[in-house]
Amino acid sequence: MGARARQYFIIVFSFLTFLALSSAFQGKKQYKPCKSLILFFHDIIYNGKNAANATSAIVAAPEGANLTILAGQFRFGNIAVFDDPITLDNNLHSKPVGRAQGLYVYDTKNTFTAWLGFAFVLNSTDHQGTINFLGADPILTKSRDISIVGGTGDFFMHRGVATIMTDAFEGDVYFRLRVHIKFYECW
Amino acid sequence: MGARARQYFIIVFSFLTFLALSSAFQGKKQYKPCKSLILFFHDIIYNGKNAANATSAIVAAPEGANLTILAGQFRFGNIAVFDDPITLDNNLHSKPVGRAQGLYVYDTKNTFTAWLGFAFVLNSTDHQGTINFLGADPILTKSRDISIVGGTGDFFMHRGVATIMTDAFEGDVYFRLRVHIKFYECW
Amino acid sequence: MGARARQYFIIVFSFLTFLALSSAFQGKKQYKPCKSLILFFHDIIYNGKNAANATSAIVAAPEGANLTILAGQFRFGNIAVFDDPITLDNNLHSKPVGRAQGLYVYDTKNTFTAWLGFAFVLNSTDHQGTINFLGADPILTKSRDISIVGGTGDFFMHRGVATIMTDAFEGDVYFRLRVHIKFYECW
Repeated sequence: MGARARQYFIIVFSFLTFLALSSAFQGKKQYKPCKSLILFFHDIIYNGKNAANATSAIVAAPEGANLTILAGQFRFGNIAVFDDPITLDNNLHSKPVGRAQGLYVYDTKNTFTAWLGFAFVLNSTDHQGTINFLGADPILTKSRDISIVGGTGDFFMHRGVATIMTDAFEGDVYFRLRVHIKFYECW
Repeated sequence: MGARARQYFIIVFSFLTFLALSSAFQGKKQYKPCKSLILFFHDIIYNGKNAANATSAIVAAPEGANLTILAGQFRFGNIAVFDDPITLDNNLHSKPVGRAQGLYVYDTKNTFTAWLGFAFVLNSTDHQGTINFLGADPILTKSRDISIVGGTGDFFMHRGVATIMTDAFEGDVYFRLRVHIKFYECW
Repeated sequence: MGARARQYFIIVFSFLTFLALSSAFQGKKQYKPCKSLILFFHDIIYNGKNAANATSAIVAAPEGANLTILAGQFRFGNIAVFDDPITLDNNLHSKPVGRAQGLYVYDTKNTFTAWLGFAFVLNSTDHQGTINFLGADPILTKSRDISIVGGTGDFFMHRGVATIMTDAFEGDVYFRLRVHIKFYECW
């Protein structure tokens, strides 16, 4: 092997090793998102008086509860259906970039927790597509993680984790969530 | 390096590069399903009179609505539970190859949209296993995509996207969906 | 190429081929979990009399049913919300290692089946994090599989399959599920 051949060989070797390694460990243990975005959504719960503004409604409740007053034991058993505006900042009146649609289920008797199943339907110049979320939400915890289990359009086949923070909570009527979307599988 | 060694080297180089590249870009950006199938399912909503035939029922509704008449504002807040026959063609009376089971949630006040969470439970000579779906369904759009987030049996660990089209819609009682299942992760 | 160079070349070639191949076929067709655990959870359904002990409640039911007596046709249409203790063994009174939270939906008229959407929220010295489940549950089948579609914390981005067995069933009030969690994608 001549000097040039050896040099060439070393370059090829390094390149292939890099490719093979980066492929073998593709996305593992490094926990760095391949794509991320921060969005807010705004939920106004129907309370019997705010039909015009409400973006969500309680549609199921345990025995003895009704559909306008949230259930007594930390809302245990309430299912709410929502269609909430998504915005780029924390202002309810900013131009929506999409809708958060699905349901939340209050599922603990002795504290506030919910099970979430919903989609972000994004329809803006920046993003076209849907993102599907699923997960347990221990509401009183400052920052909590749910799963991003799939996507369509711009988010075709994406998976990841979303970190949720309650950005505002006003009585029983309004709350705003900050959603930090971190994709770890991008296509 | 002799001519033969060089030739050998080039072949090995090409082969390794091909492997490394095809591995690095494994399944990415090509968007070609590793498996696909087209199925139909048929939903007959209980309306208070069709108990014998109905395959789904409204089980939750917002305040002021009831469980046999779909809710007033584009059905906002209705949750329906279903157990619908799946067929290979668009004929309700074809031999079912499985059941579509789960729920749909009408979630917009000013148009028809739903959030879907359901499974296909397939049990035929061709397919044994389940496929789990999740997603936003803008019902009035001709063709819309939801996520396939997992599977079992023949569809063990599969992921993909399903393109849904409303194949028929008869009043408030019957609809038929055509589901084009496209798996992009097969095991 | 000298003898040593050739030897070196062969080693590099083998190593790279191994890496490339093991990467190309990464985890496919071998069906061996990268992580697995067996857990139990315990569900005590509210029946109008056991408010103190109940861990779940029916919150939706079809027309004609109510929220304390499970619906007539194999509970078709009932949605139950639950917050059930998870234990390492089959003893309801063992120290819980977390909570199973979410909902089950009875979805067949002529047999017992359910659609499940729930999370395991684990909080013990061994495990910190959540696991998200989704799937069809043909309750009367001894062993059935549902999908694990995501996770957070210790189960960050994990996917897999869970094999569920009804470990005990006492009337309409108590059941215990054995959940064999098998992750096939670990991060």
